[in-house]
Amino acid sequence: MSSSYYSQNNHGPFEIFDAGDFDLESGGKLRGLKLAYATFGTLNADKSNTILFPTWYSGTSKILELAYVGPGRALDPDKYFIILVNQIGNGLSSSPSNTPAPFNAAAFPEISIGDDVRAQHRLVTNHFGIERLALVLGGSMGAQQSFEWAVRYPDAVARVAPIAGTARETAHNRLLVQTFIEAITGDPAFDGGWYAEGAVHRGLRAHARAFAASGFSQKLFNTRGWAGLGFTTPEDFVAGFVENHFLPQDPNNLLLLARKWRNGDASRHTGGDLAAALGAIKAKTAIIAIDEDVFFPPDDIEAEQKLIPGAALKRVSSIWGHLALFGVDPAWNAAVDSILSHLLATPA
Amino acid sequence: MSSSYYSQNNHGPFEIFDAGDFDLESGGKLRGLKLAYATFGTLNADKSNTILFPTWYSGTSKILELAYVGPGRALDPDKYFIILVNQIGNGLSSSPSNTPAPFNAAAFPEISIGDDVRAQHRLVTNHFGIERLALVLGGSMGAQQSFEWAVRYPDAVARVAPIAGTARETAHNRLLVQTFIEAITGDPAFDGGWYAEGAVHRGLRAHARAFAASGFSQKLFNTRGWAGLGFTTPEDFVAGFVENHFLPQDPNNLLLLARKWRNGDASRHTGGDLAAALGAIKAKTAIIAIDEDVFFPPDDIEAEQKLIPGAALKRVSSIWGHLALFGVDPAWNAAVDSILSHLLATPA
Repeated sequence: MSSSYYSQNNHGPFEIFDAGDFDLESGGKLRGLKLAYATFGTLNADKSNTILFPTWYSGTSKILELAYVGPGRALDPDKYFIILVNQIGNGLSSSPSNTPAPFNAAAFPEISIGDDVRAQHRLVTNHFGIERLALVLGGSMGAQQSFEWAVRYPDAVARVAPIAGTARETAHNRLLVQTFIEAITGDPAFDGGWYAEGAVHRGLRAHARAFAASGFSQKLFNTRGWAGLGFTTPEDFVAGFVENHFLPQDPNNLLLLARKWRNGDASRHTGGDLAAALGAIKAKTAIIAIDEDVFFPPDDIEAEQKLIPGAALKRVSSIWGHLALFGVDPAWNAAVDSILSHLLATPA
Repeated sequence: MSSSYYSQNNHGPFEIFDAGDFDLESGGKLRGLKLAYATFGTLNADKSNTILFPTWYSGTSKILELAYVGPGRALDPDKYFIILVNQIGNGLSSSPSNTPAPFNAAAFPEISIGDDVRAQHRLVTNHFGIERLALVLGGSMGAQQSFEWAVRYPDAVARVAPIAGTARETAHNRLLVQTFIEAITGDPAFDGGWYAEGAVHRGLRAHARAFAASGFSQKLFNTRGWAGLGFTTPEDFVAGFVENHFLPQDPNNLLLLARKWRNGDASRHTGGDLAAALGAIKAKTAIIAIDEDVFFPPDDIEAEQKLIPGAALKRVSSIWGHLALFGVDPAWNAAVDSILSHLLATPA
């Protein structure tokens, strides 16, 4: 399953950037690190029109394209050079599932949000020769990467728009992600990460159901908000939408991403002082929170927004909760487009 | 572990009522059904001062006593005859863990909320000779039983106070409970319910973590609200408080309770018409919701309250979320006592 799932046919077209040998924050090394990315639009002469958009948990550049990029939208390829970059471990960039032995599968090294952002920085500077990004944005783990960009490279980020995510993991979010991890590792077929292809389907299903129980708002279930997509019962929706999303994915890939998510902490740059880390951000900042988000509740996002000089917080409601990110709620996407357009029009 | 956990020493003193052979809603029969209960106070001459309080998921009469009963409180043994009754499957009343073969363990029959309430009705009428209860109250699964009492025996319930629960399971709550079930059944040591004692500890731990992730509010974790209880980290709290609570319990008992919870539906009396079921309640009704409750959000509770003639809805906030029920938040308990005192003082 996984070998065909992570294909150009399903998720392309995408390009591959070879970032070379790459020292990891964990102390290990990733040899011949590959970043998969897709671009839209044209880089302008002074290289000032680039938007960088990294992926979220279990997503690829394809869903970002479908949900956020298009003529007349905030992310308009007629105006901007848009780079959708796949995070390490998502199956398109270097991942447990596509790395040769001996560093494949369960032997793939641990990756941090900081590793992703440093690798993306190589892509942006070494490959494209871009010194400053007009905008970095992303949802969920993409928000983690966006914050990391703004903290780590304050002069390289003109604007930043983290959506439905935090710079530092909250205790509650870590607990939630831990339950997702354990749903997979608790399947005996997982076998320490050395499973036969397709064998961990029960763990992936349990993971999907745990993800669905918090990923969507309660109201979505209780108002049958998924009926418009053709689903008939809550069970039909969870299986047809969420299990269907996760079942073809590689368990080691998901675990790598989940641990990266759980360990996200931009304050490690400042010895754990989150106010110092976020206070050093120079980018024009518009943070977007989803009112119904259980993964990243607006209150937690607001607590961080207050630490960023001049940052705006925009709350947008969706009964889809955190997973409004997927592009399933046109009204939510329209509100986000409006916020992003306004941010892009702000001098920075 | 489980054999010593469900003891008079830990949860007593409690009495045993033998309800005899008992026909179940599922069509099966429970032979020699035992209900464990504890009483406080004295039944008055006209038998008009009885309060019935059934247990919640994984709880026993002991925690109800500790958290809700006492002189000067709403549930005052100097004024009322208080019956704390253990629901079927909780390890004290008839349960998979204490029933002899061949109906033990995984062979114990399925039980419904309606079965519990009919068995409790036998205790109240046959054993105590009480025709009408001054108050039926309960939290969570206890709320399910309270609603069932008021719907099934409208003339036997003068007042009802369901706390943090619904008469009919919402789709979202069913999904959540399903994830709790799967955390246990997914442990290979569970072995279809025929495990060795203590063998399913990994499943019980995973179940506890999933329960904690939604049972408490996010704010509790993010403000270290558990620090006052002596816990040091979120992991220390979840292990020391929640895993510690569930680890000594019997997995088949918990699964029986969880399935009973998941299938709760007072509208089966009226062919699925919830408005008709709740509209027939005659009891003075005060429903209590916890603002931060993820299991039973106030909006869902309010939707049912509107269907009950003259019912009041009281919302009480606690960063402990659903598990404020445990008696860990004195301010929450004081507010609940006040609501219950007012209800008890209302003629009915």
